[in-house]
Amino acid sequence: MESKKEQASQWFSALQRDLINIFEEIEAEATHSQYDKEPGKFRLKPWLREGGGGGTMAILEGRVFEKAGVNVSTVFGEFSEEFRAQIPGAAQDPRFWASGISVVIHPRSPHVPIIHMNTRMIVTQKLWFGGGTDLTPCIAIEKDTEHFHEALNQTCDGFDLTYYEKFKKWADEYFYLPHRQEPRGVGGIFYDYLNSGDWENDFNFTQAIGRTFASLYPEIVRRHLNKSWTDSDRKTQLKKRGRYVEFNLLYDRGTMFGLKTGGNVEAILMSLPPVVEWPGA
Amino acid sequence: MESKKEQASQWFSALQRDLINIFEEIEAEATHSQYDKEPGKFRLKPWLREGGGGGTMAILEGRVFEKAGVNVSTVFGEFSEEFRAQIPGAAQDPRFWASGISVVIHPRSPHVPIIHMNTRMIVTQKLWFGGGTDLTPCIAIEKDTEHFHEALNQTCDGFDLTYYEKFKKWADEYFYLPHRQEPRGVGGIFYDYLNSGDWENDFNFTQAIGRTFASLYPEIVRRHLNKSWTDSDRKTQLKKRGRYVEFNLLYDRGTMFGLKTGGNVEAILMSLPPVVEWPGA
Repeated sequence: MESKKEQASQWFSALQRDLINIFEEIEAEATHSQYDKEPGKFRLKPWLREGGGGGTMAILEGRVFEKAGVNVSTVFGEFSEEFRAQIPGAAQDPRFWASGISVVIHPRSPHVPIIHMNTRMIVTQKLWFGGGTDLTPCIAIEKDTEHFHEALNQTCDGFDLTYYEKFKKWADEYFYLPHRQEPRGVGGIFYDYLNSGDWENDFNFTQAIGRTFASLYPEIVRRHLNKSWTDSDRKTQLKKRGRYVEFNLLYDRGTMFGLKTGGNVEAILMSLPPVVEWPGA
Repeated sequence: MESKKEQASQWFSALQRDLINIFEEIEAEATHSQYDKEPGKFRLKPWLREGGGGGTMAILEGRVFEKAGVNVSTVFGEFSEEFRAQIPGAAQDPRFWASGISVVIHPRSPHVPIIHMNTRMIVTQKLWFGGGTDLTPCIAIEKDTEHFHEALNQTCDGFDLTYYEKFKKWADEYFYLPHRQEPRGVGGIFYDYLNSGDWENDFNFTQAIGRTFASLYPEIVRRHLNKSWTDSDRKTQLKKRGRYVEFNLLYDRGTMFGLKTGGNVEAILMSLPPVVEWPGA
């Protein structure tokens, strides 16, 4: 068990380093004059959790990536009474261990979609993987959507031919704003409580999702990186970001769970966009 | 009963008209050069509720008041199963009638505090008034805070010497962000389920809160109306507005109740600021 925990947390940290390098590279290669400042660099911000463990936030406020958070954490301790009944394997024994990576990126250009990716391994009296990724274009482009789904489909198919359909459906249901009767973006995949009985295989799947993300999102970003945008495109983006905030604060389980269990507020709310508009109705 | 409903809903509409005039006057009298556009006017937007009733939103996107919503509504119908147990007097008979006014103002100048005021009358098998007002300065000024509390104290004391202390405490508890461990603003009053047995008196109290608000907030606004602000003041304001969003979407009962009972999304989310920033940690 200790070796599994070690392997998982090391993978999340390695992926964080890779993503930092990849995103900083893109920052540097942008040429469009609408990027009116120097290429940004990530700041690393380690934190300790009262009760056990901690993490490292990596925050970029750049020119291509107006706000990017690439956070890893490995935490352990005991669930409060309130949560024991809700968590598989925690009713009898409240101890838990959790390690994961969480990425949310709000690009400067309205042509570059917002992205979220998160994967994690949780250990209670049970053990499972969870995570997913979903794409939120402010100005939807058919080609990106197809590319995104196709790449995830291929990765899923390498492990289990039922995964993609199941996990895509889960994302469609999860990333939805009932009060607006609209989806958050164009979907992706969402999975949780994954334990096939073959830990190696489940861990490989979680790594594969991370690797797919690390090549897929940069391809989509580069496709639109040096396109001009108008003030009206920007307005569209700032308004769409408002929907993102509404989703995260009204419905996102991870956000509410984190805030209610005394998680790191800065890390949890890293997902909120740098600038948002709610124009009058 | 019908006469009481009529009187209450007429009062809320009359107060809406008064507030529209008062705020438009202030829009016109601002002289500072940082107000870089023409004085704004409210747009009226009536809406009908599926299930019974409706309302009128009044929206201003002006120069002093960057976004102001002054909404009235009178709605009736039946509570869904989910809510019957939670609402006084609705367990046996799900019919309800509700009328109220809701005001949220996000001023352009960081020196002018954000304000919220809301009063309502609800009828189920029981009848009660509720409401309150709370002040959220982005740059807190002792004099405003004292003035605000003092005026509410006086108004409350005209009705019941226990009201102010009780309703101030309720506001302090209610307008609080546990995850930030910080209050939303500097408080005010919050009351609910008010039925003293003397309807006239309770209605007079609700009117008195409205009238106090209609003179008090303009006095505070005018105190700071033509003061210059810096980019750093503006940043402080945009960040404080983020806390306002967090409160309204994570904790505000009215917002969640409205969204879950199929209320008018535009009217409910009118409280969200026009521009907000969540800078990287």
